Amino acid sequence: MTNVITISRQFGSGGREIGKKLAEKLGYEYYDKQVVTGIVSKTDLCNEFVEGVLEGKVKESFIFATENSFDMAMSYQSMEIVEVHQAQTKVIKEMAEKSNCVIVGRCADYILADNENINLNRLFIYADMDSRVERCMERNKDAQLTPKQMAKEIKKIDKDREHYYSRFTGNDWGDIENFDFCINTSRSDIDAIVEAIAKVAE
Amino acid sequence: MTNVITISRQFGSGGREIGKKLAEKLGYEYYDKQVVTGIVSKTDLCNEFVEGVLEGKVKESFIFATENSFDMAMSYQSMEIVEVHQAQTKVIKEMAEKSNCVIVGRCADYILADNENINLNRLFIYADMDSRVERCMERNKDAQLTPKQMAKEIKKIDKDREHYYSRFTGNDWGDIENFDFCINTSRSDIDAIVEAIAKVAE
Repeated sequence: MTNVITISRQFGSGGREIGKKLAEKLGYEYYDKQVVTGIVSKTDLCNEFVEGVLEGKVKESFIFATENSFDMAMSYQSMEIVEVHQAQTKVIKEMAEKSNCVIVGRCADYILADNENINLNRLFIYADMDSRVERCMERNKDAQLTPKQMAKEIKKIDKDREHYYSRFTGNDWGDIENFDFCINTSRSDIDAIVEAIAKVAE
Repeated sequence: MTNVITISRQFGSGGREIGKKLAEKLGYEYYDKQVVTGIVSKTDLCNEFVEGVLEGKVKESFIFATENSFDMAMSYQSMEIVEVHQAQTKVIKEMAEKSNCVIVGRCADYILADNENINLNRLFIYADMDSRVERCMERNKDAQLTPKQMAKEIKKIDKDREHYYSRFTGNDWGDIENFDFCINTSRSDIDAIVEAIAKVAE
């Protein structure tokens, strides 16, 4: 039996920071980009394509047959997206069953939800738009974006992630029923949150 | 500056138990029914009426003038519901500003949200229907209800609370933006949750 914490998060809410600090505090493995490289190693797909799929930037495209509008054929990309889904499920299960870990994003909450071999805590990290913009501006000082432009970027990234999550899982992204703890970082101190969640997960 | 924890909760999710244990652990005052008696003492209204309003069972009723269907007059009850709202706001502010405390329900999260005199943690406690039914069956062994009947009761109580919350606050009940921590008690141990939240609130 392993202890696993999954972190789903709104962009700019500090989810990744919480994940890293939790892993460090608890002595757990930390998986983030490693999910992407794990999928790449199990398929013939390149890093950029896999990352694009997982971030919801690469979407299914459909070709409508002109002869008969009821005929619909999936494009070559759709098959490869399914390949990513399958490899993603395998990679995340292997990570979770191997040792205690924190996994950021990549639908790990859904993939591991009913796995009896692990003790799972599913976190959803969120924040109000003002504090997300502030965090992103601080982190990307060179980006030369106004707060309004940054907010637009944040919404776009979240929309893509939401698209991928709901296509993969059939669930609504951010539906609290699918999480054990939903944490708003707008007014709380990140270190205090990490302390608290470490208490539950130990 | 006082430390205040508000607890909004789905019926049967263990919110009251968490509130009591948190208050005990932290040495905070615990307010639950005391909000009702506080309102009663500030108005000429009886306990049953105030409780009925706060649980969303007493609803506004409107009388349509028969002469002109565009005329609408509030019934006597509506004025008294407004009186409850006003007294409720006062009572909860007084409680929160007096000393560190836990307040269960009664829109305290909304009333205290922008109060600069308090350090606020707003919790939303929820759980899936199966575990709520199980908790309620255990707690009400004499009620002679089947699980299906109990689920129906739970939904009714939540619907009434939701009605009152949205009438009073203009917000959607259970919208995570209005909370700092949303905690699903379906799979987590109540004592572990209390330990964790105590860490953040201290």
